[in-house]
Amino acid sequence: MRGSAESLPSRQTMLKKLINDPFDAVDEMLEGYVAAHADLVRLAAPRVVARRVPGHAKVGLVIGGGSGHEPAFPGYVGVGLADAAALGNVFAAPSPDVCLAAIRAASTGRGVLLAYGNYAGDVLNFDLAAEAAAAEGIVTATVRVSDDVASAPSEHRDRRRGIAGDLFVFKVAGAAAERGSDLEEVVRLTREANAACRSMGVALSACEVPGAGRPTFEIGPAEMEIGMGVHGEPGIRRGPLEPADAVAQGMVEAILADRRTWRTEAGGDVALLVNGLGATAYMDLYILYRAARRALEGAGCVVVRSFVGEYVTSLEMAGASISVLDLDDERLALLDAPVRTARLGG
Amino acid sequence: MRGSAESLPSRQTMLKKLINDPFDAVDEMLEGYVAAHADLVRLAAPRVVARRVPGHAKVGLVIGGGSGHEPAFPGYVGVGLADAAALGNVFAAPSPDVCLAAIRAASTGRGVLLAYGNYAGDVLNFDLAAEAAAAEGIVTATVRVSDDVASAPSEHRDRRRGIAGDLFVFKVAGAAAERGSDLEEVVRLTREANAACRSMGVALSACEVPGAGRPTFEIGPAEMEIGMGVHGEPGIRRGPLEPADAVAQGMVEAILADRRTWRTEAGGDVALLVNGLGATAYMDLYILYRAARRALEGAGCVVVRSFVGEYVTSLEMAGASISVLDLDDERLALLDAPVRTARLGG
Repeated sequence: MRGSAESLPSRQTMLKKLINDPFDAVDEMLEGYVAAHADLVRLAAPRVVARRVPGHAKVGLVIGGGSGHEPAFPGYVGVGLADAAALGNVFAAPSPDVCLAAIRAASTGRGVLLAYGNYAGDVLNFDLAAEAAAAEGIVTATVRVSDDVASAPSEHRDRRRGIAGDLFVFKVAGAAAERGSDLEEVVRLTREANAACRSMGVALSACEVPGAGRPTFEIGPAEMEIGMGVHGEPGIRRGPLEPADAVAQGMVEAILADRRTWRTEAGGDVALLVNGLGATAYMDLYILYRAARRALEGAGCVVVRSFVGEYVTSLEMAGASISVLDLDDERLALLDAPVRTARLGG
Repeated sequence: MRGSAESLPSRQTMLKKLINDPFDAVDEMLEGYVAAHADLVRLAAPRVVARRVPGHAKVGLVIGGGSGHEPAFPGYVGVGLADAAALGNVFAAPSPDVCLAAIRAASTGRGVLLAYGNYAGDVLNFDLAAEAAAAEGIVTATVRVSDDVASAPSEHRDRRRGIAGDLFVFKVAGAAAERGSDLEEVVRLTREANAACRSMGVALSACEVPGAGRPTFEIGPAEMEIGMGVHGEPGIRRGPLEPADAVAQGMVEAILADRRTWRTEAGGDVALLVNGLGATAYMDLYILYRAARRALEGAGCVVVRSFVGEYVTSLEMAGASISVLDLDDERLALLDAPVRTARLGG
């Protein structure tokens, strides 16, 4: 297909991109990425970004998923966070071979945690890689991030998708591994962080998978969709675009309502992340943050750590998500632990 | 005007924003900003973001300009960088009062450097503020960033606009001030950094000033404009969208051609910044970075430091710029000096 001029997707699409051949976009991006951040990372195998300087003997942390969510996942590889990221095509799971190569790159003999968003393709391929790793004598464990409250009801938490909560869950896992916790403890802390994390998103415009020639979904010029997934998965409500304060208030209320199904105490210390999906300006993100913080404070929460910016994106999609992580002393210390990656602490 | 429902600009515009009343956008953003980063900054006066913990007795560094370029300028206030940022309305210079309040906030008695992009409104208002500061006994000096090679020919460097080179120039100034250099030396190093820095941008789509109801400029669905300014100022060439490699090659060639009018040696160590204007995906930025780096290496340059991401934006404009900073040992040390701000080292 690729050699035929007629079959090459047009570069003249609705969403203008600065790329070359769409089929090369992921690999060219990764080539650029490891060149730009060569002090931190290296390409351990095709589609595997690994820590430049291997960690001491520690639990390995492998993260990953589809490309197009940058700075996730390569931007979280480095000291104090992930040891390797396994990457797929745009919005597609990494292949089992890529996952296995990432496990090998992360293994120092104390076991490897696989932490990734809860999507069917990722689950399948990371599970296959875990089996193959076991055959090589590498012990693995898995935590699937499932923070998106819009993607399934509270009683089916295990069906929920992972979105920007990745940041919090990966950070806790990486800090626990870096300080020398054993695999069992890293898994426990990472599972608890995932259980303590809730997110909801709002989408305003679609993005385009390179070469697809059409946007990932259709949305009207004055519409928004609350709860839409980062690949365009259907949300819970589509309606006219609302002011930022109303959008944030609604998302925080949904997050807190879900939280009440899980813990009896209201209030408490939290970390708040307002994540841009790609095309939404910092101005909008900070206005959303202001409203989300007010809504949380109105419900008795104390926002003790804040993150505002692009952490888990969907190419050039417009929109944002709000994530809330419940904190206790140990989780806060893990969130605060030093880190050196391209996106955090770089 | 503002009380009348009929006169309120429609929120239903081409570019969907997550804001409230457009007239409140800048102040709501800043309220969110200082709340999110209260460990680093405070609002010293309306539209003045200042370092939370004042520096020791040192040269003060004031930066600033219009809003809408976030993370510039508030994201560069903190330890080792700016002491205060003076901010205007979206894409409009800060008022003289705001500039003066920023100077006061940054002053510890050793003089204050005003560093900002070379735009007529900013020049006028910062100059007025400098006069008022002098009347209060505060000595100031000024360096205007003028890195955009597309904005005026080489022999009129003083007419050039400042774009993403801000990052490099401010970083050098902040590090020199933090280490205790006197005003004269900080000015010299900052001027030299500006002279050693060249940028060029490419715009793919417009943004919208909140409340304006129309985009900042018109551009066809398959067009790009090389050299367009960050507020939509005309560039040097408009044409069909090209592959990233060709775009990067052309921009690097223009930067290097300009550099040859200034220094005789080819090659040398450089820092490379690929800056996203707002809506362009990280994937595209790293693909551009890869091509820009190759073009520089092909010309004998060695890229020893790299920055890829959104550093100086234009709201949700699509496009990117490439900046090249010539390095010697001292400038590299200043670029590497520790910093703690929301955008860098945070």
